[in-house]
Amino acid sequence: MDVIFLLKQLVAIRSDRNAKTEGGIFEFGVAQFLKKYIAEQLPGFQVVEEPIAEGRVNLFVHDGTPVRLFLIGHMDTVEEGDGWTKNVRGEEKDGKLYGRGSADMKGGIAAIVAALTYAQKNGATGVGALFYCDEEYYFAGMKKFLEQHPNDLKPELVVCPEPTQGLIRRGCRGIIQFRAVVRGKKGHVARPKSGNNAIDAMMIGLEALRQTYANGEKPDAYLGGETFTLSSIAGGAVQAETKTGTPLFSSVGNVIPDYCEAMVDMRTIASLSFDEIANTFRAAVEKTGCTVGKMISELSVGSFTTEESLLAPVEAAQAAAFGRVAYESAAAGGYSDVQMIAEAWNVPAVVWGPKGAGMHGVDEYVDLKSVEQLADAFCRLVDHVQNLSHE
Amino acid sequence: MDVIFLLKQLVAIRSDRNAKTEGGIFEFGVAQFLKKYIAEQLPGFQVVEEPIAEGRVNLFVHDGTPVRLFLIGHMDTVEEGDGWTKNVRGEEKDGKLYGRGSADMKGGIAAIVAALTYAQKNGATGVGALFYCDEEYYFAGMKKFLEQHPNDLKPELVVCPEPTQGLIRRGCRGIIQFRAVVRGKKGHVARPKSGNNAIDAMMIGLEALRQTYANGEKPDAYLGGETFTLSSIAGGAVQAETKTGTPLFSSVGNVIPDYCEAMVDMRTIASLSFDEIANTFRAAVEKTGCTVGKMISELSVGSFTTEESLLAPVEAAQAAAFGRVAYESAAAGGYSDVQMIAEAWNVPAVVWGPKGAGMHGVDEYVDLKSVEQLADAFCRLVDHVQNLSHE
Repeated sequence: MDVIFLLKQLVAIRSDRNAKTEGGIFEFGVAQFLKKYIAEQLPGFQVVEEPIAEGRVNLFVHDGTPVRLFLIGHMDTVEEGDGWTKNVRGEEKDGKLYGRGSADMKGGIAAIVAALTYAQKNGATGVGALFYCDEEYYFAGMKKFLEQHPNDLKPELVVCPEPTQGLIRRGCRGIIQFRAVVRGKKGHVARPKSGNNAIDAMMIGLEALRQTYANGEKPDAYLGGETFTLSSIAGGAVQAETKTGTPLFSSVGNVIPDYCEAMVDMRTIASLSFDEIANTFRAAVEKTGCTVGKMISELSVGSFTTEESLLAPVEAAQAAAFGRVAYESAAAGGYSDVQMIAEAWNVPAVVWGPKGAGMHGVDEYVDLKSVEQLADAFCRLVDHVQNLSHE
Repeated sequence: MDVIFLLKQLVAIRSDRNAKTEGGIFEFGVAQFLKKYIAEQLPGFQVVEEPIAEGRVNLFVHDGTPVRLFLIGHMDTVEEGDGWTKNVRGEEKDGKLYGRGSADMKGGIAAIVAALTYAQKNGATGVGALFYCDEEYYFAGMKKFLEQHPNDLKPELVVCPEPTQGLIRRGCRGIIQFRAVVRGKKGHVARPKSGNNAIDAMMIGLEALRQTYANGEKPDAYLGGETFTLSSIAGGAVQAETKTGTPLFSSVGNVIPDYCEAMVDMRTIASLSFDEIANTFRAAVEKTGCTVGKMISELSVGSFTTEESLLAPVEAAQAAAFGRVAYESAAAGGYSDVQMIAEAWNVPAVVWGPKGAGMHGVDEYVDLKSVEQLADAFCRLVDHVQNLSHE
């Protein structure tokens, strides 16, 4: 099969949040294309369409035997955005395919289909795939899949070909992202005890989190250090509350501010719950006499690492297809929702995908040679599973 | 003369920023009333009308001899505001006169006029007065007066009867109020070195100011400690700049913020210039790799203290009129623009005025007995000057 031709067909189908197609939205067009493709080209596989939301589905692909090698890829993309100099639905030039989703991650999906094709051709069993929804938005596809498959699958290896420049990513930090509001008391600045400064209290609360959870101690050998980012802040003396959102603040400087809101992003190593974070924050803020008005978790996901000792077959496939064994630094990468599988099933998992650039930006492209190398590598993983099943 | 009747006449004349009268605005009605009153009732005094702005004047009152006792009072008031249960233009009840400006500071002006009346009646020379503009807004009246009189006056004592509950305030801290913008660089929160957090840099800059200028060391015996208030803050990842004011920020939490603005109020003891503050702030921010986008002084005024040893005549007058000698804590009071005179002329100065409440709020009132006591005390200061001039 022609993996590049398949990639171009996938990129031609829009699958961001603004996409609409007959019977569905977002990535539904890609799902229908893949369902039809597999039904026609890969009859040895069963495609289970698992509904996620109105007009959105995951595709779980298996051959009826226990899945040992599980290849997963999300079908949705980020929005197209402005400023493209290349065709956002696909344009080949100098060995690159430009287009939204070319690298993130339709190149990876094409390589997965190549591996399924190779497995069927060679009668290899135990290869399964998941094409899923909503990775770029709210992880609804992965969450739903794990609800539907809490413990019926136990693959030996999970590979998610998000673009990693051909490198193996064997873990990622977790994320806790939250919004918090601190309320104090207005007063006159000349008399600090006449009020209670909500901005100062916010900073004391955030410093407690930083000291407790991102103090630079005990960085993980692979994941590196924790990060703590105060992403946005707004505080002042409330002049008028609004129905939702940030109040209107006084423009004069002589009033002790009674309100502060902030958004924080933490990249974590240890398994931390939002409740633990919230309790630490609240205790520090309340010591100042201020109160935590509300605290909302925007995102709370854990970390994962897969030991190198479990990845010999992956290293062998990478060496053969890409010419060297190389891992990506986890600190360079963001969160991958393959972490949810690794955590839920306690199985070895890696993120390993093609070369490319412009993901989430303009003129996204994937390097076509790297897609072919990745397809080759995945076929070698099929061989590995095949060999093992003959042991 | 009837000091209470005069007070009621003054309160009946509106003199806030929304006041308009024939030929002028703000406090112009009060100025015209006082000018006419002095011309008719106190012919021994000259009234010099010094223009401050279109429709606004100071009145400098003197008897043609060098001014030795200088009594000063601002004629403007803050706005009326909502929620009054008493007549905002004057209502007497239970020994109190309610009304906007009754305490702040028409009671004091009435007491000054009583002292002028007493001086004329007794042939005392060396008593002068200033009735001035804009104390509640931008200090335009005091600033202009000192431009017009940089060194031609050298009184032995300046008294400003802002309401102090009958207590003597012999100093006040200075104020430095500024707005600052810090610019950083956007990046991804998972890679802290990919950006430069402008909110963190703002906090580092502010902490440098706090440590250098408001660290709790060496509080002044009378003025107390310095204060440092972060009055308002807004920061985030800029999504769109606005023509003026705060940009629109990204609502997602995974971008390192590249913008932070803040407003700060410092109450100071030492003589600090805004430039010194700005240099300290800038140096600390620039160490982080961020830059100070702009830094604007909203207010920059110094402190003053008058030694108790110079205030024997004031203490004697207070003891006789109020029954005890008592000073107000400087930490309880805000800034008084009498500081500008004290600094410019290097003369003893105090703030000393009647009892009252609701200044800048609703149902402001002045205690009428305290106005009479203050008038009595000021007459005793006239006696003191008179005695000295006969030495």
